[in-house]
This record gives sequence, structure tokens and C-alpha cells, in this order.
Amino acid sequence: MISSRNEVTQMIVSAKVAKGLRWSEIAGKIGQSKEWTTAACLGQMTFSKQQAEIAGEIFGLPDEAVAWLQIVPYKGSLETAVPTDPLIYRWYEIVSVYGTTIKELIHEEFGDGIMSAIDFSMDIQRQADPKGDRVKVLLSGKFLPYKTY
Amino acid sequence: MISSRNEVTQMIVSAKVAKGLRWSEIAGKIGQSKEWTTAACLGQMTFSKQQAEIAGEIFGLPDEAVAWLQIVPYKGSLETAVPTDPLIYRWYEIVSVYGTTIKELIHEEFGDGIMSAIDFSMDIQRQADPKGDRVKVLLSGKFLPYKTY
Amino acid sequence: MISSRNEVTQMIVSAKVAKGLRWSEIAGKIGQSKEWTTAACLGQMTFSKQQAEIAGEIFGLPDEAVAWLQIVPYKGSLETAVPTDPLIYRWYEIVSVYGTTIKELIHEEFGDGIMSAIDFSMDIQRQADPKGDRVKVLLSGKFLPYKTY
Amino acid sequence: MISSRNEVTQMIVSAKVAKGLRWSEIAGKIGQSKEWTTAACLGQMTFSKQQAEIAGEIFGLPDEAVAWLQIVPYKGSLETAVPTDPLIYRWYEIVSVYGTTIKELIHEEFGDGIMSAIDFSMDIQRQADPKGDRVKVLLSGKFLPYKTY
Amino acid sequence: MISSRNEVTQMIVSAKVAKGLRWSEIAGKIGQSKEWTTAACLGQMTFSKQQAEIAGEIFGLPDEAVAWLQIVPYKGSLETAVPTDPLIYRWYEIVSVYGTTIKELIHEEFGDGIMSAIDFSMDIQRQADPKGDRVKVLLSGKFLPYKTY
Amino acid sequence: MISSRNEVTQMIVSAKVAKGLRWSEIAGKIGQSKEWTTAACLGQMTFSKQQAEIAGEIFGLPDEAVAWLQIVPYKGSLETAVPTDPLIYRWYEIVSVYGTTIKELIHEEFGDGIMSAIDFSMDIQRQADPKGDRVKVLLSGKFLPYKTY
Amino acid sequence: MISSRNEVTQMIVSAKVAKGLRWSEIAGKIGQSKEWTTAACLGQMTFSKQQAEIAGEIFGLPDEAVAWLQIVPYKGSLETAVPTDPLIYRWYEIVSVYGTTIKELIHEEFGDGIMSAIDFSMDIQRQADPKGDRVKVLLSGKFLPYKTY
Amino acid sequence: MISSRNEVTQMIVSAKVAKGLRWSEIAGKIGQSKEWTTAACLGQMTFSKQQAEIAGEIFGLPDEAVAWLQIVPYKGSLETAVPTDPLIYRWYEIVSVYGTTIKELIHEEFGDGIMSAIDFSMDIQRQADPKGDRVKVLLSGKFLPYKTY
Amino acid sequence: MISSRNEVTQMIVSAKVAKGLRWSEIAGKIGQSKEWTTAACLGQMTFSKQQAEIAGEIFGLPDEAVAWLQIVPYKGSLETAVPTDPLIYRWYEIVSVYGTTIKELIHEEFGDGIMSAIDFSMDIQRQADPKGDRVKVLLSGKFLPYKTY
Amino acid sequence: MISSRNEVTQMIVSAKVAKGLRWSEIAGKIGQSKEWTTAACLGQMTFSKQQAEIAGEIFGLPDEAVAWLQIVPYKGSLETAVPTDPLIYRWYEIVSVYGTTIKELIHEEFGDGIMSAIDFSMDIQRQADPKGDRVKVLLSGKFLPYKTY
Repeated sequence: MISSRNEVTQMIVSAKVAKGLRWSEIAGKIGQSKEWTTAACLGQMTFSKQQAEIAGEIFGLPDEAVAWLQIVPYKGSLETAVPTDPLIYRWYEIVSVYGTTIKELIHEEFGDGIMSAIDFSMDIQRQADPKGDRVKVLLSGKFLPYKTY
Repeated sequence: MISSRNEVTQMIVSAKVAKGLRWSEIAGKIGQSKEWTTAACLGQMTFSKQQAEIAGEIFGLPDEAVAWLQIVPYKGSLETAVPTDPLIYRWYEIVSVYGTTIKELIHEEFGDGIMSAIDFSMDIQRQADPKGDRVKVLLSGKFLPYKTY
Repeated sequence: MISSRNEVTQMIVSAKVAKGLRWSEIAGKIGQSKEWTTAACLGQMTFSKQQAEIAGEIFGLPDEAVAWLQIVPYKGSLETAVPTDPLIYRWYEIVSVYGTTIKELIHEEFGDGIMSAIDFSMDIQRQADPKGDRVKVLLSGKFLPYKTY
Repeated sequence: MISSRNEVTQMIVSAKVAKGLRWSEIAGKIGQSKEWTTAACLGQMTFSKQQAEIAGEIFGLPDEAVAWLQIVPYKGSLETAVPTDPLIYRWYEIVSVYGTTIKELIHEEFGDGIMSAIDFSMDIQRQADPKGDRVKVLLSGKFLPYKTY
Repeated sequence: MISSRNEVTQMIVSAKVAKGLRWSEIAGKIGQSKEWTTAACLGQMTFSKQQAEIAGEIFGLPDEAVAWLQIVPYKGSLETAVPTDPLIYRWYEIVSVYGTTIKELIHEEFGDGIMSAIDFSMDIQRQADPKGDRVKVLLSGKFLPYKTY
Repeated sequence: MISSRNEVTQMIVSAKVAKGLRWSEIAGKIGQSKEWTTAACLGQMTFSKQQAEIAGEIFGLPDEAVAWLQIVPYKGSLETAVPTDPLIYRWYEIVSVYGTTIKELIHEEFGDGIMSAIDFSMDIQRQADPKGDRVKVLLSGKFLPYKTY
Repeated sequence: MISSRNEVTQMIVSAKVAKGLRWSEIAGKIGQSKEWTTAACLGQMTFSKQQAEIAGEIFGLPDEAVAWLQIVPYKGSLETAVPTDPLIYRWYEIVSVYGTTIKELIHEEFGDGIMSAIDFSMDIQRQADPKGDRVKVLLSGKFLPYKTY
Repeated sequence: MISSRNEVTQMIVSAKVAKGLRWSEIAGKIGQSKEWTTAACLGQMTFSKQQAEIAGEIFGLPDEAVAWLQIVPYKGSLETAVPTDPLIYRWYEIVSVYGTTIKELIHEEFGDGIMSAIDFSMDIQRQADPKGDRVKVLLSGKFLPYKTY
Repeated sequence: MISSRNEVTQMIVSAKVAKGLRWSEIAGKIGQSKEWTTAACLGQMTFSKQQAEIAGEIFGLPDEAVAWLQIVPYKGSLETAVPTDPLIYRWYEIVSVYGTTIKELIHEEFGDGIMSAIDFSMDIQRQADPKGDRVKVLLSGKFLPYKTY
Repeated sequence: MISSRNEVTQMIVSAKVAKGLRWSEIAGKIGQSKEWTTAACLGQMTFSKQQAEIAGEIFGLPDEAVAWLQIVPYKGSLETAVPTDPLIYRWYEIVSVYGTTIKELIHEEFGDGIMSAIDFSMDIQRQADPKGDRVKVLLSGKFLPYKTY
């Protein structure tokens, strides 16, 4: 009996380590970007029936787990409000240090509203640099204006 | 007597509203990107002597405030660990939902290490889209590997 | 020198008590619903130039305050993450007790996504009832689907 | 041995996924609204003997679980004070941004008191809209006045 | 300019100390119980026009303060979620140690629902006892049943 | 091997549901009030040898569990500092809203000190009322004065 | 206008530094132990009329401050739940490391109950020691047994 | 496989209840004070080889557990930063109410530094008293001065 | 099935106690410093294939565990934001007491930027001292300057 | 009237910026290391009479401030338990990632005890490095063993 998506995520993570798979290969088989696919495998996105069945084959999941992949999960991947892992913390720090800056500049360009985290995509790439390669991340989110009523 | 950078930030913010200035104009005068300039004016970055003097003229700051702009500030722009403002929260949500995904993909490409939030730049642009314009943000941070010793 | 929207909110709240005004009257003059108008006066929404000038007259605000009303505010009206006021707490309790229910039913009807709190409106009415009048609240938020990419 | 309602909720959730059921069907069999029924199945409401027996059949529960459904549960469906799931967070955000507004408008109409979260009902519907369908939620709670004594 | 009820509470508290008044005398003049009157003076309840005027005379308050007493306050009298003051902590401890007991016994007698903290009264008395006098507190709150719908 | 009182509490709670017992009956057999008995069964009080043996028979507990009932437990029945369950929250709210009032009135009557939560008893009763029955709770705690030394 | 005991504490602390007084001298004049007197001056205890008048003379306090000293204060001297000051933290650490030990040994000797922090005294002394002098602290609190009822 | 000292502590606690042992007897066999012995058995101190072997016999522990007793444990015996158990809370309250007093008096006597919680001993005794027996606790910690450098 | 690095850490810790190994010996076999090796074994660093295989032999780990050692872990070794263990707390205290000092002095020497915790090494040594041996710790982190852009 | 050391720290910080002083110069005049001097000026250490008088001259402090510098301060320089400033956070991260490692290695070398943060010194230096200069920090703290008693 599987009683949460979290158990399925643990099965996937275990299988990935045991089989020595890479996220980019998995994404190729699922037919989505590596960003969406990784988030989905880590329990943050909902699979279509077909995607779930492919994932089931890749990771050797039981039918019940394949059914769980098609259920909308309770999202949020961090164990604490302020993340302890140094890589993830740097992103939290960007929000902490640049949060009000991002707010000011989006409002200056678009007026009152937000950048959507739902109608959203992300692309992570290696940027070659003689002084040391860089991580280049492109975020794109629809602007959603506040309305008067 | 000014006893913290925060007081200078409040002077700047007040003057900006009173004078009806825009961050992009201010950045043009300071001679840096609008992202760095806004963060600096909001108390997160350190001004050079020349930059501080220009800022002093723009905002009509006293000499003591101009001196404070050249002191490294205590950084962090949010009042609470989890931000309440909806625009800034969406960024926190991106870290919460995609945090482990970002971690996995950077490690898959680069190995163990982090994406720097110090040797870092950000570029925020409007991306025209017939279904509604989007906010496009490009983040670039140097990859810093963990070392064995 | 006014250095935050919060100071303007305090001026408005003080003037409202001193003059004995009602939110519904104020809304009529501003020309928006009582819900939007109250949220705006309490520092959560952005006024247009014209709305700000009317508000300035109603509450007797200085020009600098009128300018602040047109700046997008840092939103969030509560002093603590879990609100202490009994009326507001009941709403927090609804989210606590029915949160997973709301999630399940929206996902069952619409699939993965959210109900927007930005493209959103609220209408609060008295509902006469012989067993004691009721508060009837109608919330309407656009459904925003998660997308694959 | 079942030692908490939570274990019964996990059985129900597992069975629902395994059998591919929908909340609206389940509600039809239980004979209550989909909102009450979902909240009850998720461990927030108390079943009558008859309702519990129907639920027992739907989900294939052991007798001990059927007995637990008739016990008043320890309520609260969220794992953290500020919910991490984006859909549920939007509701928390509504409380955060509009909390003082809701308070002001209910008090303006009714005087000091609260909108009950106990003598309360909720109705969630799809609202067709050419610009994108909306989630329409109707909340109704009895007004309870504070009394002097 | 008074911008919050809290400022009025501080005026009342200051005046009470300066004039050496007792809550029971004040309650007698206001014409309510000492429990309600004290809570009202400490910023938790709403005064009627007449009560506010009497309070204004007792404490020598300006007209603006008298107006504020008639506005529904943002309630909650403690500075921290877990109170530090030993007397108030003992009440928190009663909730902590006996909370689940109170829940079980009210549900056993009344079924699912709550004891209202709104339609509520409290009476605090000295109970003479040869082994040391006791504080006797009588709480009375209407039972409000959860309803199915 | 039983390694905490909590495990014994879970056995008792399971057995109570499975056998359909009521706290008042259990209290009758144990020979104490329903308030003390319920708190004791929920892991907050210490049983005498005789009381523990009766409880062992009522709930069908193993000898090791009967021994644990006679050990002073680590007290505190709530999972979070601010309780999420609506019934228990109302009690927390009473402490939050009336906390400073209770403090003022006890000090006015008794001077500096506290109302004991140890030399303490509680009595919960149904109070018939034509406008809806009420929960009447009588708390009695010894006054303990602070001493100078 | 003095609106809290805290303001009086700040007056006392300022005067003590300015006049270069010692707590033991002050205690001698007040006529109580140095432990009680210091706690009282730091806003944790209630002065009698006579003690307050002596304190008023020692520290040069206005009459209103002398009146405040006779009002029972809201107790708790720390700014954070876990104290940051190293000396005070060591005491918190003793509670953290030895808390369950103290509990076990008091229960083994006295049965279920507590050591009172109200009917309590403390004596702090220098204990000469060739390996480095020690702080010797004697705490004495009445044992208060839990009662059955 | 034992993977933490905590598991050994649970074995000890279980065995102590099952065998009906007293801490003072156990201390006699281990050859240390009852305070040190209890803290050690509850997972806060490190046993010597000989002490561990005696403990192994007393509680019937496997060899692996005896090895764990000789490993320095991760210390801290409380589940929450502010303890919920009433007996332990009273000690937290002493730190909260008297924390700044203890700080002032140790500094007045010794200058800047701390009272060690490492080079530390504790002695808990019953103090007979006609008005009710008292718990007398003697704490002794080496004074450690801050140094300039 | 192993589903997290944490399980591997527990295997290592258990094996180390059972076999009576020392970190310095283990480091010698792995071929890295004792500081890096201990952090790696405690789940904070990533092993190369060769290092993982040696660790597998030392601790008798299954192949799946050896695979996990080569996966970048979710870092952070503490259970609470403020550590409870006295030895680790002293380090937290150094950050608390000297944090702003360290910040000032690094900025005075290097300008705005940070000392890296990634391009970082640590060396812990015994420093003989007639007044009692000392722990000498040498930390070395690359200075990373903030850049304008 | 100065009522806390914090006010004196603000005077010092203001004067330092206004006069453009450096910590190393100030340390030279005070006659202590730059580490101790900076910590002292930032409100964490206690000045001798002579040191305080020199500081008074350097910063132009009033006599009352000079008196406050000789009073032991309430220590702790951070505004939040987890510091938001990136430079200070890196130190918190070192404690988080390496905390258990430091604990293991000190215990392996010295047995159970702590590294003192009181009998402690720190030395911060620039370490030239062709790949980018490094911050070298030497910490030295006396080992204090736990004792049995």
C-alpha cells in the first residue's frame, strides 16, 4: 500500500542511483525538458498517463506507483523554511539579497502584479568562461497584473 | 547622526518617490546595470566613492549618507524568513518547488559545488508574448567546485 | 519625509477614525468596490493617479503621501505568520482545516494548477437568516494550469 | 491496531488512488456535498455510523477503521504553519493580503464579532470565462457577535 | 494623531497607574463585569459610545482616543506565541497539558464542534481555603456544532 | 519492548475506539473524576499501582504497559506550540485575548503570584440554555504568592 | 507619561551606570537579598510602597516611576526564546542537557509534581578554589505535588 | 545494528521500567553521583569502559550498546526549544525571569566571563520544611573569564 | 532499497562503533585529510569512485551504499537551526558573538565580498599549553569579491 | 540618558564612518588585537577604564558612554538566529556542514568536552595566493573536559 507521492519519489531516487541513470537521459525518454522531468521525478509535477508509464518502465515501478505519478502532488521540496544545503541556500540568498530589487524592477516595467511561478519555465545551461565556467539559468514567467474591481 | 545603512536607504526611497525618479534613469547616471544599481540603492551593495557622490546628488543626500554608501552593508532585504509580498514569494516558491531540481541538474553537469551568488549577475527583461507578456530573467553565477584536501 | 507606505496607511487609518468615515462611502468616491478600496487604503493595492488624488482629499493627505499611494506596496497585512485576531484567525483556520480539500477539488475539476490570488476578486455580503445572519463571501480567481515544457 | 485517524486517512487516500475514484462520486454515495465529503475523508470531519459504513465499503476499510471514522478527529490538514503547496499557499496569501480588509468590512456591516468557521459551508464551482475559466468559491459562515457581560 | 488602538491602551494603562485606580471600580463606572471591562481597557473589546465616553472621563482621554475605543480592535494581547509571564504561562500550560482532555470530554458530551470563545463569558473569584486561598474561574462558552452540508 | 509512555497512550486510544468505551465509564472504574482520568489515559498524569492495574484490565494492556502508567510522564499533549485543532485553539485564543486581563484581575485581588496549574482541578459540564447549550468549565487553582527573600 | 515597567527599568539601569552603583549596596538599602533586589530592579518583581520609595531615592526616579514599581510587571527578561548571551546561554544549556535528569531525580524522590519557581529563592556565591574560583548557586523551591481529583 | 546513542537510551529506559530500578541504586553500582549517572543513562554523558560494562549488566544490554555508551553523544535532552513538561519548564522559567539577574550578579562579583556548564556539578536534595518539603539544588560551575588579546 | 544518503551515514557510524575505528586511520586509508574524510563519512561530501570503494571495504557496505557515496548529498549536519550540543553550540556562539567583527575585518582588508565556504579547508590540531591544552583550528577560504555589472 | 550598550555601539559606528577610521588603527591606539578591539567596539566585550577613555577620545563619546563601555554587555551580534548577511552566513554554513565533523575530531583527540569560546582568541589574515587571495583564520580555544562527579 502506497500512501503518499513521497514514497514513489523515494523509489525513483533509489532506482536512479542503483541503475546509474542521468536526468538528461530520463528526460529524453519522457519527452520533456530536463528541468520539468527532474522536478516531476522529484515529486513536484504531475505526469500524464503516458509519461507515467514510461517512468514506470525506466525505474521499474509497481502499477500503484504509476497511478500515484498521475495524481497532483503536495508540492514543496525543502525540509526547512530556510534550506541548509549550500547550493540551494545560494538561491535563497538571491531571493533574500535581491528580492526587493526584483520587485522594484518588475513593477517599474509592468506595474503592480507578479511574475508567475506556474506559467513558468526554467532552463539551466553551462556557460563556458575562461575564468571558470558559469551556471546560466533562464527563468521565464508570465506577468500577471493585479486588477481593480 | 546616521547610525545604519538602513537610514540611508530610507532617505533614498523617500527621495525617489518625492522626485518621481525611475531606477533605469538612476542606473544610467550611476553607470551600472539597473539590477546592480537598484540593489545598491536598496542597501545591498557597496558604492565606490564616485558612485556614492553621484547618488548623493541624485537623491540630495548629506555627506554623512554619502560616506555610509561606501561602507559594506549588512545584507538581506526581507523582513521575514518566508517573504509575505506576493511577487517576492513567487521567487521563494520557485526555490521551494524547484530547489532539489536545480541542485540535481547543476550537480549532473558540474559535479559537487555551488552556483555562486557573489560572482553573479542578473538581467530582467520584458519578453513580448501574444498570450501575455512575460518576465524573462537571466541569472549567471560562477560554478564553484567543492575540493578535497 | 515619508519613508514607507506603512506611514501613509497610518495617516489614512487615523483620519478615518477622526472623521468617522465608512469604507463603503470611501469606495463610492474612489469608484471601486468596497473590497478593493479597503485593501488599497490598508496598504495592499496600488492607486491610479486619479484614485490617489481622491483619497488625498478624503483623508487630507499631503502631496508626498499621495505620491506614495501610486507606488506598488510591499504587501502582507498581518503581524504574525499565524494571525492572533479571532476574525482573521477563522480564515486561517479555514485554510488549515479545508486546505487539502480545496486542493483536491480544484485539481479534480481543473487538473494541476492553482486558483489565482492576483487575477482575483472578492465580494462580502450580509446573508439574512432567521437563525442568525451569515457572512457570505464570494471569491473568484482565474485557474492557472501548470505547463509541461 | 490503528492508533490514529491519520492512519485511516492514509488507507482512504491509498484506496482512492488504487481504485481511481473521484471525490464527487464518493460524495454522491455518502450523500453529502463534495466539499464536506472530501474534508471528512481527509480526516477533518466526523462521520455518522451510516456514513462511515458506506465509506468502509467504498474504500474497503477494516471494521476498526470504520469505528475511527466516527471519532472526532484532531483537525488541521497542513504540515507547516505557512503551507508550501502553491495552490494552498494562494489561500494563505489571500488571508495575508486581505485579512485586515475582511476584518474591516465584516465589522463595518455587523459590528464586533467573527464569521464562524464551524457553522460554515463552502461551495467550489467552475466558472466558465472566455479569458480562461475561473474557480468560484462561495463561503458562508454565521456571524457571531462578541457580547458584553 | 493616534494611529492605533494600542496607543490608547498605553494612555489608559499610564493613567490607571498615575491615578491609582482599580479595575473593579472602573468596571462599576462602565457598568459591565470586571472581566469584560479589563479586557476592553486592555484593547481587546469594543466600547459603545456611552462606555467610551465614561472611559474618556475616567482616564482623561482626548476625543480622538474616545473615538478609537469604539472601533473594533485587532485582538491578541500577548507578545509571543508562548507567553513568558509566569501567571499567563500557567494558563498556556493548562491548554498544553489538558488540551486533548478538554477536547475529548466536550466531544463525548456534545459531539463534534467547539466551545465558543466569542459567545463567551468569564468570572474570576477568590475561593477561601484553609490550606491557602484559591483562584476560581468559571468559563462559559456556547457549544457550536459542526454541520454536514 | 516499550520505550515511552506515548506508546502506551496509543494502545489505550486504540483499545478505547475498538471497544467503544466512554471516558466517564472509565473514570467510574478508576475511581477519579472524568477530567483527571482522561488526562491520565492521554499520558499526562501518573497512575497509582491500583489505578494502573484497573486501566490494564479495561484496555487489555500488557504488564510492561501497566508499569509505564506508574512512571511520571513527560507532559504536554499538543503537537505544535499554537494548536491547530479548532476546539483546542479556542482555548489558546482565550489565553491570547484574555491573558493580560486574567493577569490584572488575579494580581488586583491577590497581589503578585500565580494561579497554580499543579494544585489545580477542572470540572467540565453541560449548561442547558434555550439559546443553545453551553459548555461550563470550572477551574480552581491555588494562589501561590511570590516571596521576597 | 510612562506607559510600561520597561521604561522604569531603563531609567534604573541608566542611573546605576551613571552613578556607578553596585547591586549589593542597593540591596542593602532596599533591605532584601541581592538576588531578589536585582531581579526587582530589572523589572521582574513587585516592590512594596516602602521599597519603591527607597529605590526612587537611590536612582532619582520621578513619582510616576515609583508608582510603576509597585505594579506587578509582565515578567520574562530575555529577548529571544533561546538566549544569545553566553553567560545566560550556559544556564539554558544546563536545562537542555540536564533537564530530563532533574525531572527523573525529583520524581524519584518526591513523586509527580514540580519544584516551584514562585515559592523559590536563589543564592549566588563565590566559591574559592585553587584551580580557579567557582560560582556556587543554591536554588530552593517548594515541591508541589500533582493531585488526583 | 544500532545507529545512534538514542536507541541505547531507549533500551536503558525500557529496562529500568521493566525491572523497577531506581536511579540512586544504579548510581551506587556505577560508582558516581546520582546526578551524573542519570544524565549519562539518559544519553548526555560518556561512560568509561568499566562504567559501560557495569551498565550493560544492570540493563542487560548487547555488546554493541555497551560500545555506544563509550562514544561521546550528541547532547541536548529536550524535544522543543521551550520545554513543554511543567517540571522542566519551571527551570526554563527561572532562566527567563532570573537570567539577567544571574548575569548581573556574577559579573559584579567576577567581572566579564561565564559560569561553566562543563566544569560543572549539580546536587539535588530534599530539604525538609514544616510548610512543605523543598527541592534544594546546588550548582557549582567554574568561573571562566573573557580575556583580552 | 536505500533511499537516502542518510541511511548510508547510519551504516558507517554503526560500523565505526562496532569495529572501534578512528577517523584518522580511516582518513589515512582514504588518502585525504581527517577533516575532509570525517565530513564525507558523515554525509557532507561526495566520494570519488575509488574513495567510495575503499570506504565500502572499511565499513563493509553493500554495493548500493557505495553507489550512494558517489552522489552529491543534501548537506547540513544539524538537527536544529541553533545546535543543542554544547561543543557545536560554542561554534555557533563564536558566529553569534564575533559575526559582525569577522565581517568588518574581512571587509576592511578585502572590500565587499565573502570568505568562501566551498573553496575552503580546515585543519584541527592539539596545541600543547601548560595552562591546559588548546584546540587550534585553521580555516582557509578563498576571498570572493562582489562585482558590479 | 543612555539606557543600553547598543546606543553606545551606534555612536561608535556613526563616528567611525563620519571620521573615516579603520579598525586596525583603532586597535593600535587601544593596545589590543584588531579582533578583540572590533568585537569590543561592536558591543561584545568589556573595556577597562583606560581602554574606555581612549575609545572615548577616538570616537568623541560623552562620559556616560565611556561608563557604559566598562559594563559587561548583553552579547550576541546577530539580528536573526540564522544570519542573512552572506559573509556571516558562510560561517553559519561552516558550522552547519562541518559541525558534526568538528565534534568528532575534537572528541577523538581530547575525549568528551568542548573547545572554549571564552578562553578563546581569533586571528584573521590575508593569505596571498596566485589563484586568488584567501582569508586565513586561526581560532584557538582551550579544551575543557567534562568531568564525572
